[in-house]
Amino acid sequence: MLGSTHGTLTTTHRSARVLACGEQAEGLGAVHGRAETPVDDLDVSGRPLHAPVPDLDRFFRPESVAVVGASDAEGRPNTGITRQLLAWAERVGARLHPVHPTRQTVFGLPCAPSVADLPEPVDLAVLLVADPLPVIEQLADTKTKFAVAFASGFAETGEEGAAAQERLAEVTADSGLRLLGPNTNLNAFEHFRDDLEGPAIALITQSGHQGRPLFTLQELGVRLSHWAPTGNEADLETSDFISYFATRPEVGAIAAYVEGLKDGRAFLLAADRAARNGVPVVAVKVGRTETGARTAASHTGKLTGADTTVDAAMRQYGVIRVDGLDELQDTSALLARARPPRAEGVAVYSISGGTGAHFSDMATSAGLTLPTLSDSKQTELHTWIPDYLNVSNPIDNGGHPVGDWRGRKIIDAILADPEVGVLVCPITGPFPPMSDKLAQDLVDAAEETDKLICVIWGSPVGTEDAYRDTLLGSSRVATFRTFSNCVTAVSAYLGHHRFTRAYRSPFDDAPRTPSPSVRKAQALLRPGQQLSEHAGKQLLRAYGVRVPREQLCTSAAGAVRSAAQVGYPVVMKASAPQLAHKSEYGLVRIGLTSASQVRDTYRELTDIAQQEGIELDGVLVCQMVDPGVEMVVGITQDELFGPTVTVGLGGVLVEVLRDSAVRVPPFGEDQARAMLGELRGAALLDGVRGRPPADTDALVEVILRIQRMALELGGDGQSGGLAELDINPLVVLPRGQGAVALDALAVCR
Amino acid sequence: MLGSTHGTLTTTHRSARVLACGEQAEGLGAVHGRAETPVDDLDVSGRPLHAPVPDLDRFFRPESVAVVGASDAEGRPNTGITRQLLAWAERVGARLHPVHPTRQTVFGLPCAPSVADLPEPVDLAVLLVADPLPVIEQLADTKTKFAVAFASGFAETGEEGAAAQERLAEVTADSGLRLLGPNTNLNAFEHFRDDLEGPAIALITQSGHQGRPLFTLQELGVRLSHWAPTGNEADLETSDFISYFATRPEVGAIAAYVEGLKDGRAFLLAADRAARNGVPVVAVKVGRTETGARTAASHTGKLTGADTTVDAAMRQYGVIRVDGLDELQDTSALLARARPPRAEGVAVYSISGGTGAHFSDMATSAGLTLPTLSDSKQTELHTWIPDYLNVSNPIDNGGHPVGDWRGRKIIDAILADPEVGVLVCPITGPFPPMSDKLAQDLVDAAEETDKLICVIWGSPVGTEDAYRDTLLGSSRVATFRTFSNCVTAVSAYLGHHRFTRAYRSPFDDAPRTPSPSVRKAQALLRPGQQLSEHAGKQLLRAYGVRVPREQLCTSAAGAVRSAAQVGYPVVMKASAPQLAHKSEYGLVRIGLTSASQVRDTYRELTDIAQQEGIELDGVLVCQMVDPGVEMVVGITQDELFGPTVTVGLGGVLVEVLRDSAVRVPPFGEDQARAMLGELRGAALLDGVRGRPPADTDALVEVILRIQRMALELGGDGQSGGLAELDINPLVVLPRGQGAVALDALAVCR
Repeated sequence: MLGSTHGTLTTTHRSARVLACGEQAEGLGAVHGRAETPVDDLDVSGRPLHAPVPDLDRFFRPESVAVVGASDAEGRPNTGITRQLLAWAERVGARLHPVHPTRQTVFGLPCAPSVADLPEPVDLAVLLVADPLPVIEQLADTKTKFAVAFASGFAETGEEGAAAQERLAEVTADSGLRLLGPNTNLNAFEHFRDDLEGPAIALITQSGHQGRPLFTLQELGVRLSHWAPTGNEADLETSDFISYFATRPEVGAIAAYVEGLKDGRAFLLAADRAARNGVPVVAVKVGRTETGARTAASHTGKLTGADTTVDAAMRQYGVIRVDGLDELQDTSALLARARPPRAEGVAVYSISGGTGAHFSDMATSAGLTLPTLSDSKQTELHTWIPDYLNVSNPIDNGGHPVGDWRGRKIIDAILADPEVGVLVCPITGPFPPMSDKLAQDLVDAAEETDKLICVIWGSPVGTEDAYRDTLLGSSRVATFRTFSNCVTAVSAYLGHHRFTRAYRSPFDDAPRTPSPSVRKAQALLRPGQQLSEHAGKQLLRAYGVRVPREQLCTSAAGAVRSAAQVGYPVVMKASAPQLAHKSEYGLVRIGLTSASQVRDTYRELTDIAQQEGIELDGVLVCQMVDPGVEMVVGITQDELFGPTVTVGLGGVLVEVLRDSAVRVPPFGEDQARAMLGELRGAALLDGVRGRPPADTDALVEVILRIQRMALELGGDGQSGGLAELDINPLVVLPRGQGAVALDALAVCR
Repeated sequence: MLGSTHGTLTTTHRSARVLACGEQAEGLGAVHGRAETPVDDLDVSGRPLHAPVPDLDRFFRPESVAVVGASDAEGRPNTGITRQLLAWAERVGARLHPVHPTRQTVFGLPCAPSVADLPEPVDLAVLLVADPLPVIEQLADTKTKFAVAFASGFAETGEEGAAAQERLAEVTADSGLRLLGPNTNLNAFEHFRDDLEGPAIALITQSGHQGRPLFTLQELGVRLSHWAPTGNEADLETSDFISYFATRPEVGAIAAYVEGLKDGRAFLLAADRAARNGVPVVAVKVGRTETGARTAASHTGKLTGADTTVDAAMRQYGVIRVDGLDELQDTSALLARARPPRAEGVAVYSISGGTGAHFSDMATSAGLTLPTLSDSKQTELHTWIPDYLNVSNPIDNGGHPVGDWRGRKIIDAILADPEVGVLVCPITGPFPPMSDKLAQDLVDAAEETDKLICVIWGSPVGTEDAYRDTLLGSSRVATFRTFSNCVTAVSAYLGHHRFTRAYRSPFDDAPRTPSPSVRKAQALLRPGQQLSEHAGKQLLRAYGVRVPREQLCTSAAGAVRSAAQVGYPVVMKASAPQLAHKSEYGLVRIGLTSASQVRDTYRELTDIAQQEGIELDGVLVCQMVDPGVEMVVGITQDELFGPTVTVGLGGVLVEVLRDSAVRVPPFGEDQARAMLGELRGAALLDGVRGRPPADTDALVEVILRIQRMALELGGDGQSGGLAELDINPLVVLPRGQGAVALDALAVCR
């Protein structure tokens, strides 16, 4: 988490940045912007509602750089690195000061014996030494803004290394210096092509090698502006770079390769900033499987988090998660460069009916919309395309029309359709008389339209001129090599803009002060214990979640009295703290309709408990609730994100199919509703087999109240707070009738 | 379907073919081979159990070729085609005879005025004329073996075209000639590189353009032996080419792009032949979505079939279905060339821990197994790799060891591990001092091992020497461009060999003669009608499926007598043909325990029926069955495959989640069991919430009996046969207690 002591942290206003659409950003900024809040603005869980954007300008464009451990001796690894840093310093216009205890000069530059002897305070110190700690300690007394530590052997090697890294982090935090690394490399100081135009990709990687393919995209004409190889993240972390890049005018998209996150809340705040600013974040996050998570952890010494929770958190803030590095490249390149869509419809245009059918199949399968073109548009297209060919969308031109003047007419006519926001042209086989002309027509058309044109160059060879020169030579056409990557990228593109248009930051509405429920709830919590069902339900009641009328009775006569007050028919349940699997012991009885049944049942339940050695605190006599859709709602703890809220379908569905959805607080009503939509059995709530639709409004309200409980009682700073909660079942009654929690299991820290 | 009249059809024995593993095939052939059965060998549904392999040798390698419509006039499209056919004929050593009504010579060759005037009977006539029908009619009198019709304007254009195509098919069938097309092209007569070695890919496409990327693989060193562009398939169809290619010694894998199938059974028999011969078939099949299916149908004039059924049929015969053309290329290239695996374990080896973590995550997510290397193997690897790096698998060498003599040692040590069958080395970024040496070491190692080595060249540029020359220069290393395609291909490779080892053709055991059940069943069928529940259950009983004891009663007194015979408690249900939704009308009553309840219920049910205007044929008095897992088992009709068998989980699971699995008969017990494994709620059968495991053996038995019913009564040739059957629910009792059909809905043709 970002501390408030870093001198280099500033609460910058978002400067005007060039949007992907080429418009100035002030308009959007004015909509999404807000007055910057103080750094110690906390929500009710004690976590920050705001993370300042670190000012990394001087990191990426320093005026002066010290290279500690610089060398010009042949054969030394540091010599190559020093040479590369010299070239980079020259490119960015920085003064470079070698530091070495014994050398007088390095590559002709005067060498300082230590950082204390530098001729000027430097913006950036690059540490090539095996043990960066002493240097960091020395730098603390200078006015150095940034340091980079290349050395490995820290958290990635085990406990001892983790302790060394911890010391490094402490010294850094005390010094006012910001540190990149340890266990990082030269990637930030690579040669970025400056002859490419338009919005760029900013790259963040926790493994340098994994960023190489994306960096190499520059050879295919895609502009890159930055590369942050975050390594072990003793100080500066992925989230800091997301925040910073989201405010840079030249950045059109942020691409990230993430193995683990250091701080869940910091990530959410960074993603929130990107979402507010409309800057897409595309990420590969390792950890779909146990194997991946374990290996990633051993590689960077970070935790990967519960994958479903990471996945949900990313979706909440519009972070686009992809699996392969090729998808990361293709999706971030498209998102960086394409203007916002004018319409959501995709037109598929090809020189083969088979290609059109195949691509359409994959596109619609992924949820893209291919609008059927109007009759008049089809008639227009048939001016140039033979009548027997299908032009309803996909549009099959049969080949020949692309070879002459008709080719461009067809493309323009498709682009002119108001329902079409994206034109996709898959060219599976290169056939120069047709495909070269087609590629050129598409590139020309792209210069004159603000709609997105995508081309798939299907040849596996990829050395053809039409591909290398014509298509890759255009920054206005998005060129792909596979159907699936095009479908993924176009889906992400339309989804990103849809998300951004509707985005409202949950941090703006997150509760800062405790609700009146907290006091009532805290009286019920028992540190380290699992609460009895009755206490758990009182906890729910304190947060306004409906529970059945019920009374805890300690005698048969009391049970009969309670039944009369609760109202027949009643349910009776044995009650004890730590009591699970009541039903399996026969300790739950439903549908009791008379005093004598209640009396007999009281005795039966206490007898069973005695036989089983269970010490009851009484027997619950509860109102019997009408049937409805049984759901499960709960709070669980995630090591990365703290308390999370889960909703699932009850009964066999949750047990066998694990049909549930999770969200990381804070989130609004829209996300609570979206959770229900994610359930495979969601249709149950709409009413099946003639049952009435369930009261989903009430269910959403329960989810939001449980979120409030999670924030107020579930944070790990709250001693004796709530570790876990499980409402199972929550009966959702027919619409207008509410939802009732029939059982609750609460565990305190 | 293949008729028996074609003179060119022969029942060839499978000739010895070079297997992917480099061994001679006789051994395998002897295991899987069987005496060829006569062409009219039919199963009990009247469909063939055997399809002869068309002898297409003379099609692909003719000795004499006629080109009808040949031209050498400048500017005519046929001139280019004629020129290409001339070049091709020369390459394959065929004599070419131009045919044209008015020309004397074409490109210096003497021209025949019509096919009747050809100097010799030809193996192949290529028809470049707009209307091929008259030529086909003329050819019928010659001894021409094959014709290819390029002309379009047939089934792909609508009804009129379909009728013209039908005439073409009829004339062809009568002539003894085999026809490729219409609506096809020159693809079969392309220039195949003959300098490439090893097993080849044979390609089948229903759209020429869609096959182009795969054909182009030759430029990347992958051998192609054939290309069959099947077009509209008036005669020769995809299945014919699968059968033929599966018997060719040079073919290592068959790659197919399929938009629709002509005949479901023919496809199954072809896939069966490939499975028997161990030849992998990899297919893109358009039609995952409505849009795709509709567009494909309009493109080739074929039906695409219900996609879930096509998917199931492919899995039954081990056909590997992929989505993208890039997957088709990468998967078929790997399967064609790789030897059978020695072990199922995958070792992941990289020069970056991040790369290893990322690839491992994707691989395990797809179900691949990464065995943890033994302590002794890890110790061995640490001879060359620094101790702090993880070598348990994935194996991270940290980079430097690949640059020297250690690189090859590490690779050989990994390959020597008996648990490792596949070594995957992802090289995400090219760094010549390391990656070039690594690529060469991998290529060298591949020459000396029979294990599979896969490399992923992650650079998006793809012009690097290590990629173009070193990796693609080796036919022993499988080179990919993306992690996901490597994972897909390796999964398919291991899956294919697992499938082939266990494969037993269902056609060998398919029933040929009707069972004694048929006679009983036929007495119950009512053409065009839906049977009453009672009749439906009698049908089940005829096939040995257990139903509750029950009697159909037409008076209250009769119901009481029946209840005594059936045994209390009983269930009572109103019975009438065409009666659906009994429960919603209140026409089902359960748990009746006395004569008076039965008497009252009889009256209530008949009263309700009268009020609702339902004419009952009586009231069923049924034995009450113990609770169990409720399933659904049924027969549905597929336009492509005829009757299919479906099993699903009952109740809300089938209704809301459509959790069901389908199979195309004939299939064996293994497939019936596999169906259960495909259900998302399969765990219900294992027993949840303390319930005992269900009698899955009994469930499998019911599925097989219903399959028998489907074959004997469900074929469309069977007038008055069974169109549909739905057992809902089938109660599967605890293990050892069987399964009982509580309700059945049967619809006759």
